[in-house]
Amino acid sequence: MAINDRGGTVLESLTTAAGATPVIGWTIQQPEYDSRVARARAELARRGLDGLVLFHPIRMAYLSGFYHLSTERPMAIVLSHHGGLGALIPSLEQDHIRKSPGVDRVAVYPEYPTGGTKHPMAHLVDLLAEMGLNSPGTQLGADNAGALDVNGYLGPDLAEVVADGVRIIRARDLVDKLRAVKSEAELALITQSCVWGNFAHRLMQQQITIGRSPIDISNAISAEASRTMIAALGESYQPLTLAFGGIPASAEFNRGANTALPHGLASGAGVQRGDVLVTYAGANVGGYNSELERTMIVGEASPEFARYFDMMLYLQQSAFDALRPGRTLAEVETEVSALFGELGISANQRHHSGHSIGLEGHESPFIDKGDETVVAENMVFTVEPGLYIPGLAGFRHSDTVVVRANGVERLTYYPRDLDSLSVAV
Amino acid sequence: MAINDRGGTVLESLTTAAGATPVIGWTIQQPEYDSRVARARAELARRGLDGLVLFHPIRMAYLSGFYHLSTERPMAIVLSHHGGLGALIPSLEQDHIRKSPGVDRVAVYPEYPTGGTKHPMAHLVDLLAEMGLNSPGTQLGADNAGALDVNGYLGPDLAEVVADGVRIIRARDLVDKLRAVKSEAELALITQSCVWGNFAHRLMQQQITIGRSPIDISNAISAEASRTMIAALGESYQPLTLAFGGIPASAEFNRGANTALPHGLASGAGVQRGDVLVTYAGANVGGYNSELERTMIVGEASPEFARYFDMMLYLQQSAFDALRPGRTLAEVETEVSALFGELGISANQRHHSGHSIGLEGHESPFIDKGDETVVAENMVFTVEPGLYIPGLAGFRHSDTVVVRANGVERLTYYPRDLDSLSVAV
Repeated sequence: MAINDRGGTVLESLTTAAGATPVIGWTIQQPEYDSRVARARAELARRGLDGLVLFHPIRMAYLSGFYHLSTERPMAIVLSHHGGLGALIPSLEQDHIRKSPGVDRVAVYPEYPTGGTKHPMAHLVDLLAEMGLNSPGTQLGADNAGALDVNGYLGPDLAEVVADGVRIIRARDLVDKLRAVKSEAELALITQSCVWGNFAHRLMQQQITIGRSPIDISNAISAEASRTMIAALGESYQPLTLAFGGIPASAEFNRGANTALPHGLASGAGVQRGDVLVTYAGANVGGYNSELERTMIVGEASPEFARYFDMMLYLQQSAFDALRPGRTLAEVETEVSALFGELGISANQRHHSGHSIGLEGHESPFIDKGDETVVAENMVFTVEPGLYIPGLAGFRHSDTVVVRANGVERLTYYPRDLDSLSVAV
Repeated sequence: MAINDRGGTVLESLTTAAGATPVIGWTIQQPEYDSRVARARAELARRGLDGLVLFHPIRMAYLSGFYHLSTERPMAIVLSHHGGLGALIPSLEQDHIRKSPGVDRVAVYPEYPTGGTKHPMAHLVDLLAEMGLNSPGTQLGADNAGALDVNGYLGPDLAEVVADGVRIIRARDLVDKLRAVKSEAELALITQSCVWGNFAHRLMQQQITIGRSPIDISNAISAEASRTMIAALGESYQPLTLAFGGIPASAEFNRGANTALPHGLASGAGVQRGDVLVTYAGANVGGYNSELERTMIVGEASPEFARYFDMMLYLQQSAFDALRPGRTLAEVETEVSALFGELGISANQRHHSGHSIGLEGHESPFIDKGDETVVAENMVFTVEPGLYIPGLAGFRHSDTVVVRANGVERLTYYPRDLDSLSVAV
């Protein structure tokens, strides 16, 4: 079962019928979920916790393989120090949860706010009691005070509904710290994500023409890139996006002075000659993401543009070089920030140099002066120091890298030089 | 400024240059934001609150017009009972916030977790102090205990950082209750959203063929529908999706036995003869959404399928009829649920009959036995009682309706009958 055609055990083996030859699938397989649960249990013991309640859908999925659409209906995964894995779900998900074999206890409530019975949080208490986690003296970790603020959800905090003497301890970082160091299976999915981000970006660059809107180009090429990716990866491909309507492989861009806003929102206006473009491309493979961003120019680059572009390239290369195992992320960021100062552009830095990436497009830890996390092998980061010149443009390349023993390996490989990123008009 | 070509004041007037003729734009205009702030202030007074802190991006946008991409960098809007509107933002957003004229005070922090200075929540306290909301005796409402759990964010609760004697009161519902009754401007945007959801659904139905995957069809037609919508609505169109890569107008579907999971995730496998399809279509116009869902059949409907389809149609019509001003939502849902019982299919009901919709795809209040909200004119709901037959299929139409004086008006108008929803193969 766990052996696949690549000779590894990292990706899920799928059988279409009893006795059929296992084939490769683009998802995390059950043994890896089991190992995640074992590592989380060890961390519970280390912190003196009897159990852990997770309300965030990504943490729930990481531990259990249960991916769901997050709405006003609260859901939770409960991990006991005995190793039991319970789930609180609405009736809506009762058939869906069966696809997650690691979950051995399920509390199903009819509906939110009550469906005519009691509030979902009261059902969660029933589940905790059944798992031996609602007695006085219990130390219960939780990633949040209560269910998340999604779609107008209202409800009591966990501390308000558990039995007297149960202590709730905030432990949001417990699972997130496990997630920070990627497994071989996760790296394989992120690497594959980079392949399709690259393809989407290439298609997009080919289709940028004067007058055509960014939204139109993005939608058209994202459809083509996704169709191609699904054809290439086969029917076992699942996006696992946790959302309706996520595009599996996509590329998009902001244009003109709007790029000076690091997270500027797109508009329907068309590409103009002389526009600076700041792009994004990525793909979702088995729930995993990557990030590829490029600064581009439509037509000829002005000397001013070329000067800032060169600074940005220099800063990104410096950040690649600075990111090595054993240093803290604060040390890395302090080094990169100092270079902004040497270039005389400290005022044009709007954000730190990068973030982790995996199941989420942004995740912890961060390449930031305030993050004392020690860089370790198999952490995956975006590297994207950017500079922003109000009224002119933003300048930012982002590459996804994995930390190796001696430094970083780039997983994204789209060209970074100005010639390659100029659109002929 | 507030007068537009439609003779109304409901949609934003845009001027391309001083003195130019105002043109219609597909967003909410500043006077409506001012009126929202006034209504929120009145509610503060009613609850005896001195101020309100909003951490949720949708509530922030509703009150201020500041739409942003939510990440690990916390942001907040602070409303004072004096009427001042403050914003906590990262450096990244400092140029972007200028597009929100209602915001009169801004606290900018360099970066999360600290950018080398102090935590963003400490900057929020500075803002509160500046607005006169950090003195002993202050009653401060908040939609959450602290900033949201996004992308691994970690930080103290609001109660842990404000001055001694400042009381934090949970007031998540304050803005949500204002949102529940839509203005004429909001109804105009939701109505326009329905037009493009309808178009996307029509394109999708035309392109469903044996062997083609749902993801491929969805991506292709969503690109075309979005291109067409943007061309029709003009350059002032903005999706305001609060996310990278949202598709402005889209349609998609689940197929086969997977439809028996109300929120089943999509896969790359192709459409088969005899498949039941459950669809979704919608569009984002100025931040506003609508929902159109249909149950379809590929080829000939079996008698069993037709029987369940008829039950679903009957239940949806009954829900339309039950939804009238003055009744509670619990009464409406109790009536619909009783009909499931009369049909002998109570066990196949997996969720309540609908939810509000507007800036979010799901928002409060809900058509649920536990929701005592009184139905009022200009509330907008989806109406979608569904039945789910494990191993066979799910049966659900969803329409978006607005409550009028005597009942509901359907804003979605795609055909609901089986003949119209059968795909010839």
